[in-house]
Amino acid sequence: MQTLRMLREVTELNTAGQETPREEKEFTRSGPHFSDRITADGRDGWPVEAGRYRLVVSRACPWASRALISRRLLGLEPALSLAVTDPIQDERSWRFTLDKGDRDPVLGIAFLSEAYDARKKEYPGGVSVPAIVDIPSGKLVTNDFQRLTLDFATQWTALHREGAPDLYPEEHRDEIDEVMEGVYQDVNNGVYLAGFAKHQHTYEDAYRALFARLDRLSERLATRRYLVGDTITEADIRLFTTLVRFDAVYNGHFKCNRNKLSEDRVLWGYVRDLFQTPGFGDTVDFDHIKRHYYHVHTAVNPTRIVPLGPDLSGWSTPHGREELGGRPFGDGTPPGPVPPGEEVPEAGRAR
Amino acid sequence: MQTLRMLREVTELNTAGQETPREEKEFTRSGPHFSDRITADGRDGWPVEAGRYRLVVSRACPWASRALISRRLLGLEPALSLAVTDPIQDERSWRFTLDKGDRDPVLGIAFLSEAYDARKKEYPGGVSVPAIVDIPSGKLVTNDFQRLTLDFATQWTALHREGAPDLYPEEHRDEIDEVMEGVYQDVNNGVYLAGFAKHQHTYEDAYRALFARLDRLSERLATRRYLVGDTITEADIRLFTTLVRFDAVYNGHFKCNRNKLSEDRVLWGYVRDLFQTPGFGDTVDFDHIKRHYYHVHTAVNPTRIVPLGPDLSGWSTPHGREELGGRPFGDGTPPGPVPPGEEVPEAGRAR
Repeated sequence: MQTLRMLREVTELNTAGQETPREEKEFTRSGPHFSDRITADGRDGWPVEAGRYRLVVSRACPWASRALISRRLLGLEPALSLAVTDPIQDERSWRFTLDKGDRDPVLGIAFLSEAYDARKKEYPGGVSVPAIVDIPSGKLVTNDFQRLTLDFATQWTALHREGAPDLYPEEHRDEIDEVMEGVYQDVNNGVYLAGFAKHQHTYEDAYRALFARLDRLSERLATRRYLVGDTITEADIRLFTTLVRFDAVYNGHFKCNRNKLSEDRVLWGYVRDLFQTPGFGDTVDFDHIKRHYYHVHTAVNPTRIVPLGPDLSGWSTPHGREELGGRPFGDGTPPGPVPPGEEVPEAGRAR
Repeated sequence: MQTLRMLREVTELNTAGQETPREEKEFTRSGPHFSDRITADGRDGWPVEAGRYRLVVSRACPWASRALISRRLLGLEPALSLAVTDPIQDERSWRFTLDKGDRDPVLGIAFLSEAYDARKKEYPGGVSVPAIVDIPSGKLVTNDFQRLTLDFATQWTALHREGAPDLYPEEHRDEIDEVMEGVYQDVNNGVYLAGFAKHQHTYEDAYRALFARLDRLSERLATRRYLVGDTITEADIRLFTTLVRFDAVYNGHFKCNRNKLSEDRVLWGYVRDLFQTPGFGDTVDFDHIKRHYYHVHTAVNPTRIVPLGPDLSGWSTPHGREELGGRPFGDGTPPGPVPPGEEVPEAGRAR
């Protein structure tokens, strides 16, 4: 566990912003370089304002997918527009090749790096999603994946839809933070520590920590519908984004293969319950997810062949979690349908 | 399917004897170069004779494992001694590094290639297992993996144990041959076509043929305990050697991941039934299997990291297949215990 702890410490310190396995050193996750906050009071110079910002995501990326789900649950779609990148980065990183003319229609740029450059010339770090760009100036505001969704929940409240849930309720914040910290270390980041490991022992440490944590989560979720309190919170969003990718990529590609998620009755029920909740499954593109991981990580998958499996037909099956009670949206209501133009293409949906 | 058919034709013609994915061309399985037969009448100059030959296998290799199982079921252990190679080949191929002084104690050689050289100087092809070596001359007799076990069943009869089963019964040979042909193309070799594919479409063809065949086999085995007749035959041995490796290597490493074998109720019952039958499971070394595939195929797994999963605890669980009837050994009896010195080490056993 020594190695893993060291890796974690390095993770906190490193600011290079890349998510690519390197040839010699063990994998470390970069912290976000640009951590300005968009707040109600605009104290960093970026006030919450409808129509001013653009959220840039890859539907492949679990970190960006937190923002996708949070935006849907809170009904921020009309206030904060969305740009979806190609799931395959090239040497200039995230590209807008899914758009007409290979440019984002609002920002007018071909590569997300252009917004980074607009913010800081010759910025030496990596280009990551999620990112929020200031539309008038074309400048990147933040790529702080850990902070961004918490601010959606607590700073963007004036722009929330009618009936939006409280995803970060005051009375549960300590517990939510504690749960999310363990989930981050061993699950969200843990799958990468396993998959990008350069040495057998590093992989084994990460694998063991991952499954030990999943076992504890499974036990916790056996008797309660959601991780904290009786409603969906930020903690559920963060666990979901890793679990929904588990059998499609982490099980094989990252060698997290003690069992498939679908072999854990509790976690499989939990993740399907969320998947079937408006705002979760309707953001998930399995085609983007699989092509990204299997194409981009050539140090792990040099052939770039994308598996046809696993069979995804189980995602819509009954999960039975309603029996545990819980109030998914608390005193609020589910979000409405996905806005036109933001639907996940047929090729990416679970069938 | 055009590509796959072409591949199969090339497979039949190629005689280079290697099982390594090549950089540019699609994978083709080499035919055996040395196809002399050891027969009751000795017509190729190699008569069946107790104590004269040595069987060389890798417990990692599915083709060699056929011979391991057949030898156990027929009780050929006292007549035909066994050499087990290191699961990891080096650039000189299969090695006897598990033995004292890194040499096979009977043949006195360090590399299986020495027996190939003794047979034919500067033989340009690959070195494969299973191989049978003539102990007095040190010469390779055969590496014909398709023929070898059929000869165990039909030519080595004088040396079979009391109560040995008939693994290739006359009255069922046409049906056995037909079943084995489909299993060979789509399953035994199919997993390699998928795993060593250089192009997405080649992989997809192999994947689809594999699962289509497995679905048909699952249907066939839903109502009958064994593939042909009501007893264990060579056809079951050949299906078993691929199925027993399925979740441990083919599912992740070779991307045969529509589902795990353990998710197919019928095939998972069938393979556990055989695994728990004396002569099958007691030849299986999961440690050798996993280390071989994940270490040797660096074009597929450049990190050489060996997954800790999957959980193997299910292999000893009840399979319920007795309800289908069947007489595992026909009029014969199960084989006795594994001979001393041939036991699979603890590290390789399913727990």
